Amino acid sequence: MPEITRIEPGKRMSNAVVHGGLVYLSGVVGTPEGDVTSQTREIVAEIDRLLALAGSDKTRVLRAQIWLSDIRTFDEMNAVWDSWVIPGQAPARATGEARLYSPECKVEIIITAVQK
Amino acid sequence: MPEITRIEPGKRMSNAVVHGGLVYLSGVVGTPEGDVTSQTREIVAEIDRLLALAGSDKTRVLRAQIWLSDIRTFDEMNAVWDSWVIPGQAPARATGEARLYSPECKVEIIITAVQK
Amino acid sequence: MPEITRIEPGKRMSNAVVHGGLVYLSGVVGTPEGDVTSQTREIVAEIDRLLALAGSDKTRVLRAQIWLSDIRTFDEMNAVWDSWVIPGQAPARATGEARLYSPECKVEIIITAVQK
Repeated sequence: MPEITRIEPGKRMSNAVVHGGLVYLSGVVGTPEGDVTSQTREIVAEIDRLLALAGSDKTRVLRAQIWLSDIRTFDEMNAVWDSWVIPGQAPARATGEARLYSPECKVEIIITAVQK
Repeated sequence: MPEITRIEPGKRMSNAVVHGGLVYLSGVVGTPEGDVTSQTREIVAEIDRLLALAGSDKTRVLRAQIWLSDIRTFDEMNAVWDSWVIPGQAPARATGEARLYSPECKVEIIITAVQK
Repeated sequence: MPEITRIEPGKRMSNAVVHGGLVYLSGVVGTPEGDVTSQTREIVAEIDRLLALAGSDKTRVLRAQIWLSDIRTFDEMNAVWDSWVIPGQAPARATGEARLYSPECKVEIIITAVQK
């Protein structure tokens, strides 16, 4: 039976789950007080942290799904995203508008990656 | 060529697809008449049923994506979710607001799991 | 280290990423000028093209996630979807409402498939 490894497991969700070499992150959000730029910066830093714990990194991301509470902040989010992604190693991606559990949460990113 | 097994296949979608030990469920919704609590209860029961058909169970869920037609029902959905998830075996998770095909559908949950 | 193949990689995203036999497509949208029917037709044609580049096809789709900018266009989208899917080979699917980066983009489809 293949092993499932849960990273920072909680009673509601685990921050990451690893199975068969694949890394499934929970949706990552930033600090509610921040604007889209600062929240997105926090999010990619947290993604880097979780991927490291899971034995992966941003060059090994297969797919990202991005939710914005206001789709008109697309360019603002992308400015941070574009500076985070390594050219030639960008994942598949989709971005849509979705309000999040806190009205102050403006961005959420869901990552699927593969271990090194 | 690895086999794809479809469970309860329809002309539009299959309720579950199994490949390479992974189980991909379609988004599960409840009965439109119910409130968020009763819809979520129906949904987790249906997830249990589909996972059993696919040779998995709720201890083997890798990821969940949850859509609420009104994000303000987050706590109401979570009360059912938290009583369903086994402590220490919670999946990665993300929750966002999305209206669903029927205005009376208030919750939809999309599960990725692994076979036992 | 398992290989990651990126198809039509850009600095922001890759149109498809292949790893371990699985094919992860970016969310596919149509031409903003079109209505839901024409956009969905363009989308499934583009999915066919990307799956072919990735060594897969529509009989090998495991999962689809569909976003509509207006959920009331559900039936209009489905008319095209239903004529595209091969009976008996439909993927797991979920559909929700999400506004997209351009107000004129009415449909986005995210596909996970497996190589032949």
